[in-house]
Amino acid sequence: MLANRNLPADLKAMNTEELSALCEEIRQEIVATCLKNGGHLGASLGTVEIAVALHRIFDSPKDKLVWDVGHQAYAHKLLTGRAARFGTLRTHGGLSGFLAREESAHDVFGAGHSSTSLSAALGFAYRSDDWTVAVIGDGGLTAGVAFEAMNNIQSPNHFGPLLVILNDNQMSISENVGGIHHLLSNGQGADYFHLFGFDYVGPASGHDLPTLLATLNGIREARPARPILLHLMTQKGKGYSPAEARPALYHGVGPAQPSDVSGKTAPSGERATSTEKAWSDLFCSALIRAAEKDPKIVAITAAMSDGTGLLPFASRFPDRFFDVGIAEPHAATFAAGLAANGWKPVCAIYSTFLQRSFDAIIHDIALQNLPVVFAVDRAGLVGADGPTHHGVFDLAYTGLIPGTRIYTPEVAGDLEGALGAALTGNGAAFIRYPRGKAAEASVPYSAVRRGGASVDSAAKKVLISYGPIGVRVKKILSGLDPSVTAKVAHFSVIEAKPTPNEVVDFLEKNAGTIVEAIFFEDGVRHGSLSVDVASRVPSLKIRTFTYPDRFLPHGNVPEIEREFGRTDEAIAQAIRAGL
Amino acid sequence: MLANRNLPADLKAMNTEELSALCEEIRQEIVATCLKNGGHLGASLGTVEIAVALHRIFDSPKDKLVWDVGHQAYAHKLLTGRAARFGTLRTHGGLSGFLAREESAHDVFGAGHSSTSLSAALGFAYRSDDWTVAVIGDGGLTAGVAFEAMNNIQSPNHFGPLLVILNDNQMSISENVGGIHHLLSNGQGADYFHLFGFDYVGPASGHDLPTLLATLNGIREARPARPILLHLMTQKGKGYSPAEARPALYHGVGPAQPSDVSGKTAPSGERATSTEKAWSDLFCSALIRAAEKDPKIVAITAAMSDGTGLLPFASRFPDRFFDVGIAEPHAATFAAGLAANGWKPVCAIYSTFLQRSFDAIIHDIALQNLPVVFAVDRAGLVGADGPTHHGVFDLAYTGLIPGTRIYTPEVAGDLEGALGAALTGNGAAFIRYPRGKAAEASVPYSAVRRGGASVDSAAKKVLISYGPIGVRVKKILSGLDPSVTAKVAHFSVIEAKPTPNEVVDFLEKNAGTIVEAIFFEDGVRHGSLSVDVASRVPSLKIRTFTYPDRFLPHGNVPEIEREFGRTDEAIAQAIRAGL
Repeated sequence: MLANRNLPADLKAMNTEELSALCEEIRQEIVATCLKNGGHLGASLGTVEIAVALHRIFDSPKDKLVWDVGHQAYAHKLLTGRAARFGTLRTHGGLSGFLAREESAHDVFGAGHSSTSLSAALGFAYRSDDWTVAVIGDGGLTAGVAFEAMNNIQSPNHFGPLLVILNDNQMSISENVGGIHHLLSNGQGADYFHLFGFDYVGPASGHDLPTLLATLNGIREARPARPILLHLMTQKGKGYSPAEARPALYHGVGPAQPSDVSGKTAPSGERATSTEKAWSDLFCSALIRAAEKDPKIVAITAAMSDGTGLLPFASRFPDRFFDVGIAEPHAATFAAGLAANGWKPVCAIYSTFLQRSFDAIIHDIALQNLPVVFAVDRAGLVGADGPTHHGVFDLAYTGLIPGTRIYTPEVAGDLEGALGAALTGNGAAFIRYPRGKAAEASVPYSAVRRGGASVDSAAKKVLISYGPIGVRVKKILSGLDPSVTAKVAHFSVIEAKPTPNEVVDFLEKNAGTIVEAIFFEDGVRHGSLSVDVASRVPSLKIRTFTYPDRFLPHGNVPEIEREFGRTDEAIAQAIRAGL
Repeated sequence: MLANRNLPADLKAMNTEELSALCEEIRQEIVATCLKNGGHLGASLGTVEIAVALHRIFDSPKDKLVWDVGHQAYAHKLLTGRAARFGTLRTHGGLSGFLAREESAHDVFGAGHSSTSLSAALGFAYRSDDWTVAVIGDGGLTAGVAFEAMNNIQSPNHFGPLLVILNDNQMSISENVGGIHHLLSNGQGADYFHLFGFDYVGPASGHDLPTLLATLNGIREARPARPILLHLMTQKGKGYSPAEARPALYHGVGPAQPSDVSGKTAPSGERATSTEKAWSDLFCSALIRAAEKDPKIVAITAAMSDGTGLLPFASRFPDRFFDVGIAEPHAATFAAGLAANGWKPVCAIYSTFLQRSFDAIIHDIALQNLPVVFAVDRAGLVGADGPTHHGVFDLAYTGLIPGTRIYTPEVAGDLEGALGAALTGNGAAFIRYPRGKAAEASVPYSAVRRGGASVDSAAKKVLISYGPIGVRVKKILSGLDPSVTAKVAHFSVIEAKPTPNEVVDFLEKNAGTIVEAIFFEDGVRHGSLSVDVASRVPSLKIRTFTYPDRFLPHGNVPEIEREFGRTDEAIAQAIRAGL
């Protein structure tokens, strides 16, 4: 049916049996594609009937469907002209794993981060005669921005008909936590939403298609003056038994590696040996060892116990572990309060989600010089999740904050040393590492690791790398002619801020003989550590392998890098040039 | 009594009459000092009895008093050993206008931004046997981070006794708005807080000292297992009739200028002629003119209708104006939704508060290339409000986001041109301007304004300035010997990002003859526009007048600048050096 129908228009003419069969077909397509390409299986299986019913009852894109955190919207994609291309999901040049305005007129608002849909929906509803429908998970309601929008539903201004569908799967990404979860579980949803001016309908099953169609139709025809909250109970992973049984594990799955579906596998296209460990797991192991020695260490996650690798810590130290839900600003300010009272909090948050804590880091932690360590996971390119998830800004936005310390471990063994250093001293400290596995190397921890030309005056080129990319630089270097490598010095920087004096001193001292300094950094150029270091050395000629002033697409990491010339060949050529 | 007693210890021995008299004395002191030094009169007058009662019943600093947005805590300062120095409030080297951990052991958590107290209080309450008391305004409850903390009150972890005092003065900074305001006004506070696991007490008067003492004592003795929410009704400006009558106007007052208390006067120590206008007012005038021509323009503020100068817009276009409350992330994402539906939203937010919108700007606006204009008010040093309010990060954190446009008007007339340019085109655009008044100058709008040496090859020094500091640079330059100025070119940059090609081209073309490029920017050096431009020109020798990698103190602007060598003399000397 997906292939041969004109969707979503044909939905209007289909009877309930046909719609149910369509749901089944959509489910099969989602499971097959996610197992092939990786993807957010659980959330999208939970919203199949909701998507079908919404497109049957409402008229997208005239009516606006705003899906919170687009990974619950695969069915919506299949229903809006993208069934034939669905096999390209999350591949380079293929469909985005989230919504994307450039992909379809039905994707009225993109979202890879959670909890933005209510704010956006209010924007669409302003002076609109058409319906605006937001679909948000119960986990999404815990985030501050969703609450701020809730608080604005009762605006004196002119808002058109607004329906909020609460997709209550009793999960955020990890188990749901906190007050919202309790009140929904206790049957107090109506009380809560009434307080904020909603008419409340529910709770009802989000999988019972006939009732869903009737309910949505009733709401649409009634066109009430007040916003409606329709509370639907859904099951994450519905229809795929492994995902039903272990919903947190199947939140996101990697391609073709059913035994490891936690998203910690190396991005496809990269090679990792079987003994290598994921950075997230290395972090948790190091944290557990530190916490065994220091009873003041506590750990915080924002609904990412699994993704950040913290589950073993949570098991080992349940009293010293906090999952605050999807609430990154609170996570940071809560950590500041803990630190002000003598604890040593470590927050593990993905680079891109930590953007939400920016003011809390400045105002609550850095300004007060309170000791809080951030484990900045998924730093650098993440691959298939694409532009909403690439962690390419953290080096710039943490670097600009006064007094911050930044650690960029290069190899597996560096994580423990970096964590130990980060836990010593005050203020905000950031240990950033990418998705995927760390290279093993028997080298002692060091703030800066020097390689290449051993005689200073011989170094015509100086390579400065931050973090794991140093391994790649070394490998490229080792493949070059010895006549070239004799003229190249390499600094692999682990303690990246404060500015490593060793590097600046070297550059200053040898400025007369250095032809060029080449910087390698997994982040945007503007505001980078690279440009900051370079600016401290008068008359230094530089070249940067950083990311350009644009948002980077999804795909596997080598594909994305190739797209803008960051290949091994290009790097080798840059090193050789002029030597 | 303030001068002669050992406070807060002596409070324990005072009877109610003495405590009441003390309250009166505190009020007089607050009014006198605010009228002399400027300050947050209204909020602090509303919490006098609360502060006295808290210090009488609880044992600070053993018990932790966490005041939300510290400007409501002047009475707390007077009660904790700072009465003798209170006359130095908000002056350079004197007491901070907010709480500061380095100022007193009783200031357990600093806060210049709103709504952080609940998160911090949870941090203090973790495994504590002592009481933790947070005092938060009703306006503060609208911000997402406060909600995220509310959602975490019901944590499975071990929290000690926790009291949250809701200081309900029915105001945020402007009139309070939204769902929280409605439910509190409708007597539904108990319902709301019960849903999140609080025991609720109130509402009661926050000015009835005997009842307050009895209530707090009862709570303290009962030491209930669940967190307590004590709902107190207070009056902003209580005891000072002009402030009682016009609470929004008297939220913050400037020193010795009772006819202009809106905070838009020039920072003390700067000179402005009587015909010059505040940047905020110029912005609103320009916006009204633009909105008269374009019916798609709408304006958004986050509880700052007055401070951002938007009140005339709100009067002129009430249907096109949104005060979303203290909710900066929502403001930005709501704007994105409006933009996605064809509106042209303009958000006026202070530089330092916009830090809360960082992820929304990246994820909802820039990534989707949606046309949203931000009027970044209070950019650069703000003076007496100090480090929580200095707007010294925005150029760096907006500059690092791909595709952003940044406008730094130099003189009054530039604001209209910059707004017009910002409203043309897609993506996030930022017009940033400081607190205080704009210089008048009869010059046409221009993306870059060139002055100084007219012959390229004569320019041994190149000055590049962003925004109003260009006026100061010109003035300093005009005071130098003509033999010097003949060798100096000056670029005053108004359209600052994308990188102005005119400037880069000039620097590249004349790199051989330029001795030094000197950049002037009202922001931190790391991540600055200055360093970015410099990094694009090989082998350019640079000097920067930016701010260092530290948090800057409070005081008047010239005092702060003098503290780290940014004086007219230092600038003149830098220009002359080597010519």
